[in-house]
Amino acid sequence: MSGPLRLDEIATRVGGVVHGDGALVIRGVATLERAGPEDLSFFMNPRYRKAAAASRAGAILARVGSGLAGRTWLESADPHLALARILDAFHPRPVWVPGVSERASVAGSARLGTEVTVGPFAVIEDAVEIGDRAVVAAGAYVGAGSRIGAETVIFPRSVLYPGTLVGRRCLIHAGVVLGADGFGFATADGRHHKVPQVGRVVIEDDVEIGANTTVDRAMLGETVVGEGTKIDDLVMVAHGVRLGRGCLIAAQCGIAGSSRLGDRVTLAGQAGVSGHLEIAPGTIVASKAAVYGDVEKGGMIAGIPATEHVRWKRSQALVARLPEIWAELRGLRRRVGNLEERTQ
Amino acid sequence: MSGPLRLDEIATRVGGVVHGDGALVIRGVATLERAGPEDLSFFMNPRYRKAAAASRAGAILARVGSGLAGRTWLESADPHLALARILDAFHPRPVWVPGVSERASVAGSARLGTEVTVGPFAVIEDAVEIGDRAVVAAGAYVGAGSRIGAETVIFPRSVLYPGTLVGRRCLIHAGVVLGADGFGFATADGRHHKVPQVGRVVIEDDVEIGANTTVDRAMLGETVVGEGTKIDDLVMVAHGVRLGRGCLIAAQCGIAGSSRLGDRVTLAGQAGVSGHLEIAPGTIVASKAAVYGDVEKGGMIAGIPATEHVRWKRSQALVARLPEIWAELRGLRRRVGNLEERTQ
Amino acid sequence: MSGPLRLDEIATRVGGVVHGDGALVIRGVATLERAGPEDLSFFMNPRYRKAAAASRAGAILARVGSGLAGRTWLESADPHLALARILDAFHPRPVWVPGVSERASVAGSARLGTEVTVGPFAVIEDAVEIGDRAVVAAGAYVGAGSRIGAETVIFPRSVLYPGTLVGRRCLIHAGVVLGADGFGFATADGRHHKVPQVGRVVIEDDVEIGANTTVDRAMLGETVVGEGTKIDDLVMVAHGVRLGRGCLIAAQCGIAGSSRLGDRVTLAGQAGVSGHLEIAPGTIVASKAAVYGDVEKGGMIAGIPATEHVRWKRSQALVARLPEIWAELRGLRRRVGNLEERTQ
Repeated sequence: MSGPLRLDEIATRVGGVVHGDGALVIRGVATLERAGPEDLSFFMNPRYRKAAAASRAGAILARVGSGLAGRTWLESADPHLALARILDAFHPRPVWVPGVSERASVAGSARLGTEVTVGPFAVIEDAVEIGDRAVVAAGAYVGAGSRIGAETVIFPRSVLYPGTLVGRRCLIHAGVVLGADGFGFATADGRHHKVPQVGRVVIEDDVEIGANTTVDRAMLGETVVGEGTKIDDLVMVAHGVRLGRGCLIAAQCGIAGSSRLGDRVTLAGQAGVSGHLEIAPGTIVASKAAVYGDVEKGGMIAGIPATEHVRWKRSQALVARLPEIWAELRGLRRRVGNLEERTQ
Repeated sequence: MSGPLRLDEIATRVGGVVHGDGALVIRGVATLERAGPEDLSFFMNPRYRKAAAASRAGAILARVGSGLAGRTWLESADPHLALARILDAFHPRPVWVPGVSERASVAGSARLGTEVTVGPFAVIEDAVEIGDRAVVAAGAYVGAGSRIGAETVIFPRSVLYPGTLVGRRCLIHAGVVLGADGFGFATADGRHHKVPQVGRVVIEDDVEIGANTTVDRAMLGETVVGEGTKIDDLVMVAHGVRLGRGCLIAAQCGIAGSSRLGDRVTLAGQAGVSGHLEIAPGTIVASKAAVYGDVEKGGMIAGIPATEHVRWKRSQALVARLPEIWAELRGLRRRVGNLEERTQ
Repeated sequence: MSGPLRLDEIATRVGGVVHGDGALVIRGVATLERAGPEDLSFFMNPRYRKAAAASRAGAILARVGSGLAGRTWLESADPHLALARILDAFHPRPVWVPGVSERASVAGSARLGTEVTVGPFAVIEDAVEIGDRAVVAAGAYVGAGSRIGAETVIFPRSVLYPGTLVGRRCLIHAGVVLGADGFGFATADGRHHKVPQVGRVVIEDDVEIGANTTVDRAMLGETVVGEGTKIDDLVMVAHGVRLGRGCLIAAQCGIAGSSRLGDRVTLAGQAGVSGHLEIAPGTIVASKAAVYGDVEKGGMIAGIPATEHVRWKRSQALVARLPEIWAELRGLRRRVGNLEERTQ
């Protein structure tokens, strides 16, 4: 599909139900604040109920049961997914013009698939293999022996150290560094001797990695980012880490050396995981948490050190009340002292 | 003005009062440790009182009432601002030689103002507009349709994704990435489907952004950094965030999607703000804090979760004393047990 | 030495003792999981005892007294150091082919030593000096007046602002930014006026700096990273900081302006140090900790604010038990109330 589209056509394609004027022609998608009468907007977070009511949007996409009385709206069991599809329709993905820039530096021994794009000042070193329709954008660097899967995009100025493997349909954003040396030293006689980092980085299919994130190469073996895992900006994945499939790693998280995250683990922003740990599939780590031990069953954990989220919340509520608790304790001490005197 | 300058001339220009030898000729500005008899140094933080006393500096700039007895010093109501002006005088800003490097890649449809500098290996894509006297330094990448205001400097290797707007007199340091995709996915059937990020990034006038910071494009609409806001290194500004005017965001802070910071908000180092929040103008968030809820009035907040700073400090002092509190509680329990026996 | 090697030869060279078959020919080094009968593997962390027992490795390097009964193993007093040497033997460091790429931009006034490597699209500005056998890899930027010592490698896309000094045998990984402006502003009339940052960055010999780390230039004087210090990825070293010799700074740490770390200080991941502090030599700061005050004697500190590690651990254990403590306190209050009634 491609815009403009009638609202009922959109509903059919994304599997939703129209309340109100299904014949309305939608010409764009916009935020609640900016949408006009020919735009579709969306309302998923209850924080924005007022904004939804005040919006000039012609139609609003919302969750089942949102009850936007008196408005034309599109009811969806999964409005996030519906929105993703609608945006795809109205905003086709940018097209990369295939071809190798004359201003790129491509080694003679590199093998490029069909319809590959290589931007100006990109560098592709010896024995690199690049899949069909893949993109190595302006100024990106692909070290010797690396392999990039079909339809993957390496955005401007990202760097793949030698021997890095990136799967198919990945998005590696600007400034990402894959395969730099892990942080490994043997300290003797007061000096830190470098432990050679001779492993590599393997990024499986359908992974997205945000701007300026770093994934270090393993000392030996591989640092692995599992299929379908999505990583935000400024994340640090250390040497020898294995991220499972379908993980979500929010911005500025750090995962120390050799830890293994199961499938579908979520780390919220600025969380940290110590080295050599195992985190069970499906675990959710709250933002700012520090995981210092293995996590054997999933569930949500929080705090420094991380513990069960519900328990952490209760403890923190009491930390906030410590001044009252302390006052209470001093009061009791006095009363006990009085009792002791009285009963001597 | 430009150095060398007599101390009393400096005083006149920055609005200060000389104590001691106003005729002293100042040839440079230096730290307390390195300054010699023809240098001006400065003393603003009481931690450095000893260093100030020991300094060989010919003159010392200091706050009103600093009482540097027996020394030649320059008393100022605002020594930070005076120092900024004095440094400007003695160290003129680096000059960028206008001209477009033959080794840059500039699209024919790009429009460049007068006296623009474009460094080697910079890439300027289709329909970009660059204001007068702006600089796109070596290896920087400016995506299609971006606009850069007059006198702005894009430092080496920074990346502007397509459609990014940067105002006038901005400094965008090396490695900064503006406009990479926000972290947005709709999870269905165990897979994370990308929600297209079709908004853009708008950096208003007089903004400075530190090295390797990332500002993601909005899903829809704009991610905005308000006029005069200053951002340090390695900060993450997520999709749809709005930073007000005159904010100060220290290094390694993260602001999650769609949050709005009012004018003059300060985030100290490594602080985090969750998504979809409103932070009142003038709020100060302590380093390492995690803001999990709206902040309705200004003031200083701290902790994980963030709470009133004074309250946080009191609670943390008691956390440190928990071993004693626990011992006290056990003692009381024993005494109450004794009392109960005795009064049976 | 270079592989393949007999196990007893390896033992002689790294100073270890063979238990079992010293004549075994070792052809490679691998992780416990991947090693085969002609590989050496290693076992240092007790977490991996089971993996060591199950490994198909021909030989295992381990600490004195590891007691790998029934296996061929190499006993070492310092297995980390031994491993570093063995890896060096089996995986010779990558060789950089000397020569200046025709596609680099090198100022006429730059002085290059012998056997220097300059990659494509690297930029070397006026009056830069580069020592013998140093490498400025593809797309790296070396600002005017910078100096790079012999045998140092500047990896792809890293940026040295003008006037930066880097010593000998350093490794500056991809995306690193040295010498961007420190975060210094004088606020007056609601506006943040830039305090010119006219100092520089000095990286001493044998320093390694991880991918996308930033070290800002000093306002005046120098930001210094001491000899032999190793810095991980995404670390922020602010203006005027001095790191001593032999420090270890793990990923995503931040050190605020003008703080001074003594020799051999360790910061674990995501730790932060406030500005203008002095940290004693040998101090170990736990991950996620926030150092808000001077540290006068070494030892390990943890927490926000950071305190003695042992004490922090005890307090945190009690924080986790606060719900029980609170219940206990309420129980006592009741009992005391009862006692008071009874003894009226």
